[in-house]
Amino acid sequence: MEDFGNYVFIVLKILYYEGKANRILTEQVSLIFGQNFVISFQEKELNIFNSVREIIKSGKGRIRRMGADYLAYALMDTIVDNYFIILERLGEKIGDIEEDLVANPTPEALKAIQNLKREMILLRKSVWPLREVVSGLERSDSLLIHDYTDIHLRDVYDHIIQIIDTIETLREMLSGMLDIYISSISNRTNEIMKILTIMATIFIPLTFIVGVYGMNFEYMPELKWRWGYPVVWVIIMVVSVSMLVYFRRKKWL
Amino acid sequence: MEDFGNYVFIVLKILYYEGKANRILTEQVSLIFGQNFVISFQEKELNIFNSVREIIKSGKGRIRRMGADYLAYALMDTIVDNYFIILERLGEKIGDIEEDLVANPTPEALKAIQNLKREMILLRKSVWPLREVVSGLERSDSLLIHDYTDIHLRDVYDHIIQIIDTIETLREMLSGMLDIYISSISNRTNEIMKILTIMATIFIPLTFIVGVYGMNFEYMPELKWRWGYPVVWVIIMVVSVSMLVYFRRKKWL
Amino acid sequence: MEDFGNYVFIVLKILYYEGKANRILTEQVSLIFGQNFVISFQEKELNIFNSVREIIKSGKGRIRRMGADYLAYALMDTIVDNYFIILERLGEKIGDIEEDLVANPTPEALKAIQNLKREMILLRKSVWPLREVVSGLERSDSLLIHDYTDIHLRDVYDHIIQIIDTIETLREMLSGMLDIYISSISNRTNEIMKILTIMATIFIPLTFIVGVYGMNFEYMPELKWRWGYPVVWVIIMVVSVSMLVYFRRKKWL
Amino acid sequence: MEDFGNYVFIVLKILYYEGKANRILTEQVSLIFGQNFVISFQEKELNIFNSVREIIKSGKGRIRRMGADYLAYALMDTIVDNYFIILERLGEKIGDIEEDLVANPTPEALKAIQNLKREMILLRKSVWPLREVVSGLERSDSLLIHDYTDIHLRDVYDHIIQIIDTIETLREMLSGMLDIYISSISNRTNEIMKILTIMATIFIPLTFIVGVYGMNFEYMPELKWRWGYPVVWVIIMVVSVSMLVYFRRKKWL
Amino acid sequence: MEDFGNYVFIVLKILYYEGKANRILTEQVSLIFGQNFVISFQEKELNIFNSVREIIKSGKGRIRRMGADYLAYALMDTIVDNYFIILERLGEKIGDIEEDLVANPTPEALKAIQNLKREMILLRKSVWPLREVVSGLERSDSLLIHDYTDIHLRDVYDHIIQIIDTIETLREMLSGMLDIYISSISNRTNEIMKILTIMATIFIPLTFIVGVYGMNFEYMPELKWRWGYPVVWVIIMVVSVSMLVYFRRKKWL
Repeated sequence: MEDFGNYVFIVLKILYYEGKANRILTEQVSLIFGQNFVISFQEKELNIFNSVREIIKSGKGRIRRMGADYLAYALMDTIVDNYFIILERLGEKIGDIEEDLVANPTPEALKAIQNLKREMILLRKSVWPLREVVSGLERSDSLLIHDYTDIHLRDVYDHIIQIIDTIETLREMLSGMLDIYISSISNRTNEIMKILTIMATIFIPLTFIVGVYGMNFEYMPELKWRWGYPVVWVIIMVVSVSMLVYFRRKKWL
Repeated sequence: MEDFGNYVFIVLKILYYEGKANRILTEQVSLIFGQNFVISFQEKELNIFNSVREIIKSGKGRIRRMGADYLAYALMDTIVDNYFIILERLGEKIGDIEEDLVANPTPEALKAIQNLKREMILLRKSVWPLREVVSGLERSDSLLIHDYTDIHLRDVYDHIIQIIDTIETLREMLSGMLDIYISSISNRTNEIMKILTIMATIFIPLTFIVGVYGMNFEYMPELKWRWGYPVVWVIIMVVSVSMLVYFRRKKWL
Repeated sequence: MEDFGNYVFIVLKILYYEGKANRILTEQVSLIFGQNFVISFQEKELNIFNSVREIIKSGKGRIRRMGADYLAYALMDTIVDNYFIILERLGEKIGDIEEDLVANPTPEALKAIQNLKREMILLRKSVWPLREVVSGLERSDSLLIHDYTDIHLRDVYDHIIQIIDTIETLREMLSGMLDIYISSISNRTNEIMKILTIMATIFIPLTFIVGVYGMNFEYMPELKWRWGYPVVWVIIMVVSVSMLVYFRRKKWL
Repeated sequence: MEDFGNYVFIVLKILYYEGKANRILTEQVSLIFGQNFVISFQEKELNIFNSVREIIKSGKGRIRRMGADYLAYALMDTIVDNYFIILERLGEKIGDIEEDLVANPTPEALKAIQNLKREMILLRKSVWPLREVVSGLERSDSLLIHDYTDIHLRDVYDHIIQIIDTIETLREMLSGMLDIYISSISNRTNEIMKILTIMATIFIPLTFIVGVYGMNFEYMPELKWRWGYPVVWVIIMVVSVSMLVYFRRKKWL
Repeated sequence: MEDFGNYVFIVLKILYYEGKANRILTEQVSLIFGQNFVISFQEKELNIFNSVREIIKSGKGRIRRMGADYLAYALMDTIVDNYFIILERLGEKIGDIEEDLVANPTPEALKAIQNLKREMILLRKSVWPLREVVSGLERSDSLLIHDYTDIHLRDVYDHIIQIIDTIETLREMLSGMLDIYISSISNRTNEIMKILTIMATIFIPLTFIVGVYGMNFEYMPELKWRWGYPVVWVIIMVVSVSMLVYFRRKKWL
């Protein structure tokens, strides 16, 4: 924000959701307002100020009756409101991911968390200058800004503080989610290991036993016994059942 | 909080435990008090203010003798007390989970930690405005608030600070619990790996040995030896015992 | 702390080690002192103030010559000294666990860390009011507290700050220990995996080779070769030695 | 910075990218400026001040018209601009690594993160004295520094604050990337474990079954059955298909 | 630090490297200085003050010409310089460990990190009182401390602040190293798992196949086929090659 006496020059960042790509886009808006004019510059054509325009056209609301500073405030308020919309959507996204993080920790969730983190940094980066501008306007003793606008600016400022708070909370939640993610993955690896260990621990000894009687020694008395084969089956049963009992005691089954 | 001269308007958040679902619910309460009236608005019918009503009906206590500001204070005090009840219950829940986290780190515990974290964020979010309101009332020079009420408000304020402190401590504990959880899971994976490794390391070489004498070569002198078969058993014993000794030395058994 | 003009009322928390259970217990002590009396209330019979009593009985030291405020100070000083004893013991415990954390990360160590963390939170919680009380007494302009006692209270206050600092350092160390624990467990899992992989990687291919010549096809020319069996042993040797060389190069052995 | 009345002595650190090695190098520059002179000392020959020289040579710009303090400011501004270039490059590097961290977490990425962390610490270390110097010059009441230079110094100071902010953000991102890295590696280990477990769980029981009929007992009725061999194949099919169904239900396939 | 009017009493902690054990040792030094004397007490005989003694003996330098306060400053400066030496060595150690942490994460590195952490805590603990003492001397209005000494004390104070900053940076680096360590270990476990999985996944199915034709059924048509044995080899080749192709596609090879 720069105050040139006759007019005030403000540079702000607008964040908005691009409908198709579902991504946050950023755009720079410059506002110049003097005694009885407000000029705004945008790079792309956005309909973010449409609601303000509607109000002016309809003749309702206070904007037409108040000065240029009030219109500038109304525009800034619209920008700040837009932040709330974005935060709400991000909050919903975070909630969605969090919901099935414990149940189903996919690499896609990891990617989504990473993206949200990056958007959070972007958000924080663009909200700080906003804070500076609004607090600057509020504190400034420019004759262009009337007292009733000051009150409204104070309101906008409170909203911005609330936005910063929410960003911090969401950031903390995202950090926490990574921990949950790692916990959850560790958990699943643990489950997989259990299955592998159960299968291997039961069948590897059994394979050894049947391997023994697959040997071709000429003098193996067991091979000639009438009950040799059934006895081997009994041994197999005993080994596998005792293994299962062991695993059940360990609460793996 | 807004001070309109003739009356003061306060918006607060009540948190309470819904009996059945065992969840924390949040409700907004508005208080308006003037020279000699207190009006309170709630969305749902809660019996949170019953205790105050009882005291008024019974005629005991100071509330009837004091002004409207004192009644407003009494209501706010009741709300703050409710926070303590919630914190106590959350503290108990955390203690319960913590107790069997090392012994038994289930995915359910992970989910419970996640839920508690979310409730903590909710709690922190709704206690901050409370702090603002009470500190605002205390500092305000409204004629509606008498000196003796100020002292009590100071008390309420101290309680709120205590609540915020407790929330922070509980949040730290929850963060620490995730670390304990991961440690504990790593530990168990380690245990499982040990069992698998012991079984595999003992039986895989043995299976190889018996596999050797399962080969059908025409010229395998060992197969014709009188003591071939018993010697193989001796080898098997030696291998498996030396493995067990090795594992015992590694303190795996 | 409350100053009632004629007397000062103080509520403090004593922490002490219960000899048998080796646990920290907490007890509330109330002190009331006026112009020439000090009354102390305890729930349980503790001999924490014995040392003060001894000094009074023996007639040595300054306590008998000074006022009631000095005795109150002496009692508070004893309580603070007790905190140091507890911190020292906790520090020793932490050192003991830390020592063998890298070498031997057991679940018991994890449990011990968790317990120490909880005791740390308890400690911090009960030392804060102590700080409040002492700083309150020091700043108060009560006529009951003489200048020379003020100097000593300043001393006690410095000790309390030192206690809080030590608590923070110990808490940091405990957090760091959990990281060390996880690192150490990961390390061991890694070691176990190496052993498993070495065994499996050497013997699984060998078992396959001997399995091949265990097949019962009628036309298997190798089985009739005079040197078939020794050649298989040569192959087995070559495979296992090259595997061992590979692992040595990877520095697993 | 030291102010010797007649001249001001400044020591600064320049950071620049060495073209070939793609590493950040650091160099110390000393500036001395008095009423109408600026002397700069460098250890190595760097063309960092070329742009300033060009402007002076060309006669354009304000530098020739202003005092020595303005030239000193211009040089410092060039140094600060250089920081921005470095930060931008580091930011790009971080972005590049972050991009394929989830998809492909290599040890090289880990090394790159570690290097970036170290460069960040270096950066932070050398930007702090810069801040001190500029804020010192700005606050100083030396007659050598004119008012219009003060305004520009304020600008440089704002840039430095912005640099420090960016460094902090990048540092946070790097910390977050390590968490992502660990998550991603855990994920992949999990995937590998699944494949191993699927293979082992299907084939280990099958190997056991065929092992059974590889035994050489004289009395094994199944071996003589006409349909023994096909029945074994049926059993093999049933076991492996039911395993596959089990794994599909677990969403491992 | 205590100022007794006629003399000033200072207690400081010296840290020094014990040559053989390569450990940091700590020693307490007391300084008393008055109008024209400085007395220093040490428990052990250290030659830390030798450099000061040399300067005094040689008659060079300012120490002999200045007052007792200047000598006291010189001694304190020597102590502070010693901290820098220790920090430099610790920094080198950290650099050394960091260097081969990614390439070779041994348990010894873990132990070294833990030791460095403990030394860092020790360092921080003993540098704080130093800060207190020097800032106390600087602010004190004792007649014993001349103005020119004050300037030098300010210098010492700046050095101490620099030491504290460096300690914090090194502590952060150590924390980061633990994360790198865990990442690196996870990475290696991952590599080991890959090798195990590749070997197991290729050979376990092959062992099954040869197991099939090791069965002793009387009616196994394949066993009598002229090309049965070569066909099995073809199958083995196809299976193992397709597995290798699969793993190459997964970029495991």
